[in-house]
Amino acid sequence: MKVWPGVKTTTLMVVVLVAGTAWTATAADRDKLLNDPGVYGTFATFQMDHDWWDLTGEARVIAVSEVKGLIEQLSNKVVIESYLLRGLSDHADVMFRVHAHALADTQQFLTSLLGTRFGRHLVATSYLHGLTKKAAYVPGFPDQMKTDLKAPSEAGTKSYAIVIPIRKDAEWWALDQDTRLALMQEHTQAALPYLNAVKRKLYHSSGLDDFDFITYFETEKLDEFHSLIRALEQVKEYRHNRRFGHPTLMGTVRPLDDILELFAR
Amino acid sequence: MKVWPGVKTTTLMVVVLVAGTAWTATAADRDKLLNDPGVYGTFATFQMDHDWWDLTGEARVIAVSEVKGLIEQLSNKVVIESYLLRGLSDHADVMFRVHAHALADTQQFLTSLLGTRFGRHLVATSYLHGLTKKAAYVPGFPDQMKTDLKAPSEAGTKSYAIVIPIRKDAEWWALDQDTRLALMQEHTQAALPYLNAVKRKLYHSSGLDDFDFITYFETEKLDEFHSLIRALEQVKEYRHNRRFGHPTLMGTVRPLDDILELFAR
Amino acid sequence: MKVWPGVKTTTLMVVVLVAGTAWTATAADRDKLLNDPGVYGTFATFQMDHDWWDLTGEARVIAVSEVKGLIEQLSNKVVIESYLLRGLSDHADVMFRVHAHALADTQQFLTSLLGTRFGRHLVATSYLHGLTKKAAYVPGFPDQMKTDLKAPSEAGTKSYAIVIPIRKDAEWWALDQDTRLALMQEHTQAALPYLNAVKRKLYHSSGLDDFDFITYFETEKLDEFHSLIRALEQVKEYRHNRRFGHPTLMGTVRPLDDILELFAR
Amino acid sequence: MKVWPGVKTTTLMVVVLVAGTAWTATAADRDKLLNDPGVYGTFATFQMDHDWWDLTGEARVIAVSEVKGLIEQLSNKVVIESYLLRGLSDHADVMFRVHAHALADTQQFLTSLLGTRFGRHLVATSYLHGLTKKAAYVPGFPDQMKTDLKAPSEAGTKSYAIVIPIRKDAEWWALDQDTRLALMQEHTQAALPYLNAVKRKLYHSSGLDDFDFITYFETEKLDEFHSLIRALEQVKEYRHNRRFGHPTLMGTVRPLDDILELFAR
Amino acid sequence: MKVWPGVKTTTLMVVVLVAGTAWTATAADRDKLLNDPGVYGTFATFQMDHDWWDLTGEARVIAVSEVKGLIEQLSNKVVIESYLLRGLSDHADVMFRVHAHALADTQQFLTSLLGTRFGRHLVATSYLHGLTKKAAYVPGFPDQMKTDLKAPSEAGTKSYAIVIPIRKDAEWWALDQDTRLALMQEHTQAALPYLNAVKRKLYHSSGLDDFDFITYFETEKLDEFHSLIRALEQVKEYRHNRRFGHPTLMGTVRPLDDILELFAR
Repeated sequence: MKVWPGVKTTTLMVVVLVAGTAWTATAADRDKLLNDPGVYGTFATFQMDHDWWDLTGEARVIAVSEVKGLIEQLSNKVVIESYLLRGLSDHADVMFRVHAHALADTQQFLTSLLGTRFGRHLVATSYLHGLTKKAAYVPGFPDQMKTDLKAPSEAGTKSYAIVIPIRKDAEWWALDQDTRLALMQEHTQAALPYLNAVKRKLYHSSGLDDFDFITYFETEKLDEFHSLIRALEQVKEYRHNRRFGHPTLMGTVRPLDDILELFAR
Repeated sequence: MKVWPGVKTTTLMVVVLVAGTAWTATAADRDKLLNDPGVYGTFATFQMDHDWWDLTGEARVIAVSEVKGLIEQLSNKVVIESYLLRGLSDHADVMFRVHAHALADTQQFLTSLLGTRFGRHLVATSYLHGLTKKAAYVPGFPDQMKTDLKAPSEAGTKSYAIVIPIRKDAEWWALDQDTRLALMQEHTQAALPYLNAVKRKLYHSSGLDDFDFITYFETEKLDEFHSLIRALEQVKEYRHNRRFGHPTLMGTVRPLDDILELFAR
Repeated sequence: MKVWPGVKTTTLMVVVLVAGTAWTATAADRDKLLNDPGVYGTFATFQMDHDWWDLTGEARVIAVSEVKGLIEQLSNKVVIESYLLRGLSDHADVMFRVHAHALADTQQFLTSLLGTRFGRHLVATSYLHGLTKKAAYVPGFPDQMKTDLKAPSEAGTKSYAIVIPIRKDAEWWALDQDTRLALMQEHTQAALPYLNAVKRKLYHSSGLDDFDFITYFETEKLDEFHSLIRALEQVKEYRHNRRFGHPTLMGTVRPLDDILELFAR
Repeated sequence: MKVWPGVKTTTLMVVVLVAGTAWTATAADRDKLLNDPGVYGTFATFQMDHDWWDLTGEARVIAVSEVKGLIEQLSNKVVIESYLLRGLSDHADVMFRVHAHALADTQQFLTSLLGTRFGRHLVATSYLHGLTKKAAYVPGFPDQMKTDLKAPSEAGTKSYAIVIPIRKDAEWWALDQDTRLALMQEHTQAALPYLNAVKRKLYHSSGLDDFDFITYFETEKLDEFHSLIRALEQVKEYRHNRRFGHPTLMGTVRPLDDILELFAR
Repeated sequence: MKVWPGVKTTTLMVVVLVAGTAWTATAADRDKLLNDPGVYGTFATFQMDHDWWDLTGEARVIAVSEVKGLIEQLSNKVVIESYLLRGLSDHADVMFRVHAHALADTQQFLTSLLGTRFGRHLVATSYLHGLTKKAAYVPGFPDQMKTDLKAPSEAGTKSYAIVIPIRKDAEWWALDQDTRLALMQEHTQAALPYLNAVKRKLYHSSGLDDFDFITYFETEKLDEFHSLIRALEQVKEYRHNRRFGHPTLMGTVRPLDDILELFAR
């Protein structure tokens, strides 16, 4: 990890509070935030415009350090994780996953970010919003399946993150709860073998953007993740996806410092 | 609320006449305008181009103050509400909701706005137009439902605004009036629990843009709003939406002064 | 109406020959042109690029006057009507409706326009081409309906113009002529109440662009126009529209002088 | 062949060798090339960027003359026809139809073109590639139809050119050969009355771009061409078009000299 | 092959390690890499921006040589093949096919590339990712078909490369394994006659981008390739392609030196 000359103390704080893989106030805090219902998650992706590279190296370093100060200020309201999409996605260079109790706080962070000298060169390419909720179908699952779902996944942050937004068709929502429960049980059964290798997280989007769900994945084993998606394509519930991806966002989990350094270089 | 140096009087006028949350000639006037049939509502969203930020701070302050003068001039013909979409929508930075008795007046406002030094940096990203009309189905609803619909929603302006345009399929329009009435009664029943937390307003668009309806929502509780949309997805009428969203526009209700200040900073 | 300093004579000619509401060589000539079969109609919409506003005011005035000279030159071959879309459409700032006996003449006008100092700042956003033809179904309608269709609409140019291009589905074209006649009779019956308030004109597009028809409307009463479209959505023929709008273009009928002045200001 | 400074003689040569309507090494050569199977046809359309017009007139003249030299060099490998789309298509300003025995030669021409000072201002908007093949269905047609198809169309180059790419649906390809033959016979029957007024040429695209066919038309009578497309929309084969147009490209056949002069002016 | 003045040694290395047709550490190594399962393949396409051409010739030569140094550094982790799409595809000028054991290595290469003075002028237009896997259906094929599939294709690198991404419909994935096996056997039978002329390679994409498969082809005979695709369109499996192409990418296999030289010129 690189330290910025002249902003050492700040950098130290930032590392603790926000950076992707390094956000470790405590691992427990992070897990709690990722598991609590009623939290808003925003996936915001950006492209760096071409003018950025016309700035002098010094101007880029100054611009980048401004971002760190900003994030420190807002760290009591929002939790920000950063991802490098550049080189893996044609949509965007950077993605932030922002968790907050109110989207107004997320908006404050993102507008502040866009107002920095760094942010003025960012072009927003997609914003997805979702809400975390208690599992809707799990209470109706068989006990063994519930136990299986509680098995801990491998410790540590995974290298790759993939975001797949989903819109269900009208027929899905018209199904009665029992039918949906049965379909989701089949879906979950297909996913069980991958619980350990692939961390999943679900956000509910209806009304907050053009999707019904945002599915978020982290894994070190992309081939296992691919097999998981293949398995999910083969269950009946998959037929009710009117849109699946478009965009599919893929990147690597990265401390913000790494990402900023890439653009300051 | 900030006051611009040297334009105090003007600012005072503007606050009274137009700003988003602050537009309170009287709450009754506002409610009347929002409830009268035969009014045209335009949702106009804009992105600020990147050149804007190359202007000096002083030039931006001057440019912004020009907008305020303009809005004051036109305040007898159009009512303008402003929303900050930046940080929540990838489509746009700012949205105006303009109510007028004639779209020619709305056009005059928007062309004047685009002609200001501020407006020359705005890129129009979507214009939606609709007409307010008397409720088409409510007269056929049961009396209890009519009473429920009259229950006042919580006082005050809500923090978040969401705009979802809708295009119905041809089958919807081919249904006879009684069938549509029954479907709309089911739709309304599903929405009743959210009447208090979420304010709704309907605009009729057929022919005025590529949609049939524009649905506008205001709420302080986005989770309740999300639950409302989920409930509406589960009724039979939802199957007749050929397009729902695309774009879904989300922002926060803001006085114009706040928004302008953000871009002058 | 403003007159440009130093180009008085020219302006005078232009007013007579081309301007939107002012094109009145004689009202009879205009009506004839709008009613004759075998004429090509082109709807060309343009956005003004942002560089335009970086020109000095003087440079803009010179650029604009060049357009007037051009239109005068070509006025014996094409009839040009102008519309202001700015402030009502996110697609475009200006629309020209060009009628000519040959599209090569229309092309000559538009390439000449684009070659002026004004035109070099125009970005073409959509070109729609259609051909006027004798009414295909009217001869088979009942006599009363034919009489009704001949009733004159209100005199004078209407304020608003709306263009809705349409693509029919393959099933439509596969219907036999009698079935299509019956469906068009139902369609026409639904439109009759709006004959007076809304002027309509039909262009046939198949092969000339990606649509089958361009429908053009003029009205002072947008609410009546909206009701007309609603009525047309409810007849069986509407189910055979594979695409309806996309884009829907709305603007106000304006003399070219007014539009040019707006951009010279 | 041609060399620019001092240019008159040279120009004369160029007109003979490459220009759109004037390419007449011999009419027989041209016809042969247009009729031989196993030739690749590429339809490449370009927009001129706005920076072009910021060049001085002299710089534009120099840039344009470089193009002529290039085309001369490559004239033994590719045959290039040029079309002016500006003023008729919102997609593009210029289209080249390039015939070659190998697409590598076409690529060499187009990359060379893009590398000229003129070409650096061109933005490629669509490339369509197809292969000419022997008629697949004609051998199975009745003798009279075969005779009709051999009737010569009117001599001379037609003024207008229209390109409509087509993608068939999966059902089309799943039909057996006899059924497709019957459908194509009906299609051809509908087209017979227009053989004289509209020249047609078919390219096979599957795998070479996102379409299955490119249909190319030349005509002086656009109304006849429109009637031809209308007739083709009414036969059963039309139901198997998953995509028809999108884009539909329309322009006028023009010698390259005319087109280049338009941009040099 | 051109050699860059002053970078002779480097160039020599580069030729050995990476260039498209020239990558020949040994032909066996290359074949192995192209045939092993568990390898990630990325198809990354780029457009050169227009500012590039405003650089001096010298600046372009320096920028280009930086790319070569970079590729040499990373040659132990990724294998890079280069393709010229310019002049054949409207999507892009250049395509890289990158094979790596981890997408993080591919990302490192591409971000490094984008960070060079050359790369800062590249606009990413599409990234497709896939995983190579053991053949899923071949083990169930008849022995004769297995033997046929092992027949060697013509030696040497083919001139043209075509990439067609595919998304299957939900019905495909819902079929049982035996039905899919039968359909794939029919598909393979149709492809057998083209084994010699067209090299094929399959990548599995589900979850890694918006497709299920990426099919990659190399051939010297584009007409044979076209016939192959036509043959594949006529088997029943084709009906299960929800998306086929969009984009279809076509280019010529080229040593990186050739491509870089084209942009340095």
